[in-house]
Amino acid sequence: NHIIICGYGRNGKQAATKLLAYNKPFVIIEKNKETIEKFQDENTHFVLGNANEDEVLHQAGIERASTLISALPNDADNLFVVLSARQIKKDLRIISRASQETSYEKLKLAGANNVILPDRIGGDHMASLVVVPDLIEFIDNLAIVGETNINIEEISVEKLYDANTTQRTIKDLDLRHKTGCTVIGYKGQNGEYVVNPEAEQKLAPNSKIIVLGRPEQIHKLNTVYKLD
Amino acid sequence: NHIIICGYGRNGKQAATKLLAYNKPFVIIEKNKETIEKFQDENTHFVLGNANEDEVLHQAGIERASTLISALPNDADNLFVVLSARQIKKDLRIISRASQETSYEKLKLAGANNVILPDRIGGDHMASLVVVPDLIEFIDNLAIVGETNINIEEISVEKLYDANTTQRTIKDLDLRHKTGCTVIGYKGQNGEYVVNPEAEQKLAPNSKIIVLGRPEQIHKLNTVYKLD
Ligand SMILES: [Ca+2]
Ligand SMILES: [Ca+2]
Repeated sequence: NHIIICGYGRNGKQAATKLLAYNKPFVIIEKNKETIEKFQDENTHFVLGNANEDEVLHQAGIERASTLISALPNDADNLFVVLSARQIKKDLRIISRASQETSYEKLKLAGANNVILPDRIGGDHMASLVVVPDLIEFIDNLAIVGETNINIEEISVEKLYDANTTQRTIKDLDLRHKTGCTVIGYKGQNGEYVVNPEAEQKLAPNSKIIVLGRPEQIHKLNTVYKLD
Repeated sequence: NHIIICGYGRNGKQAATKLLAYNKPFVIIEKNKETIEKFQDENTHFVLGNANEDEVLHQAGIERASTLISALPNDADNLFVVLSARQIKKDLRIISRASQETSYEKLKLAGANNVILPDRIGGDHMASLVVVPDLIEFIDNLAIVGETNINIEEISVEKLYDANTTQRTIKDLDLRHKTGCTVIGYKGQNGEYVVNPEAEQKLAPNSKIIVLGRPEQIHKLNTVYKLD
């Protein structure tokens, strides 16, 4: 149930830093021996080799992995890794980097669940500092990294009460009073998403609520409803 | 009061797309004539030239600009532009791209207010899909781009009541009832930031609240309190 990161460049390194902060187990596939010698320590496990080779993916334990992050600098290499990984494991979550916009669809076709274009995200972020500065600052204040520092959680209503026999509204849950958390979103049974739903919003079976809280409030929510 | 974008590569192009969606005026400095001929239209104004030259920055109206986004592919070029722009205009907001981690401090020293590393943001985003998926989905659902689609706003308490003569709490504001918006953050007079503050949180003079709402709720907030 670990995560495999292919490539320990700027992209892969940052992904590893974040996974480490959240205490998620991961293995890095890196073909440069000197990079491995420089960065290997008790927290950072490497497999030496080219992620293009199935044998190397097997060495990294792809059969047991939950997620593969392909963070190679070259789009053709990422495409090859994504296709190989999808061939080996049908239910693997695959996240790939892409440099070129035109690679996006190809990587999706090859089997990537998510494709991240760093330059697009970077350009978007620069403009966001101008057009939605309040949002950016809010997110920055959420992002104090760490596994105990989760601020936003999505919860199935089934975990809060028996949704098949009872019909409730967000107000009925009384989460603010019971846990300190605030409901900031609602996801209906067909995936439709409502930001800042009304207190009178009816909760359908199989729907989800999205809550905001400080870490201690999220912790209380998890304790009160035995969600962990 | 416009924005200057230096460089119309993948980064600059995405920044321009977002500024356009929010109806913010901008000018692009681009040295490649063919790029300009290909992308010039009624919404996209170019200045042909090298942003390294003060003369070109003047042609783009730097004296009247509010913000400069330096999105050149080369860190040395961004450094040169940032330093030149800061020399010309002391109160300009300067946002720069950087490829190398080591350029971050240099660009800050040269006068950049914000430095964006696309590969770092990209790697962070890939890991975030694994460690905080609920947060990423929530943000994605906020980000339906457009000037009328703002979901999060920061508001000085002075705009809501006379904070010098009156002491109020978040509860006293009764924003949920009056506008539908939810208070999701509090920024004290010294900039300290509280996520999901208590209803009993006292509002200090010069403090700010951060509210979440659907576009029509944010609009109502702006109307009720004449914030526009
Ligand atoms: Ca979750
Ligand atoms: Ca604002």
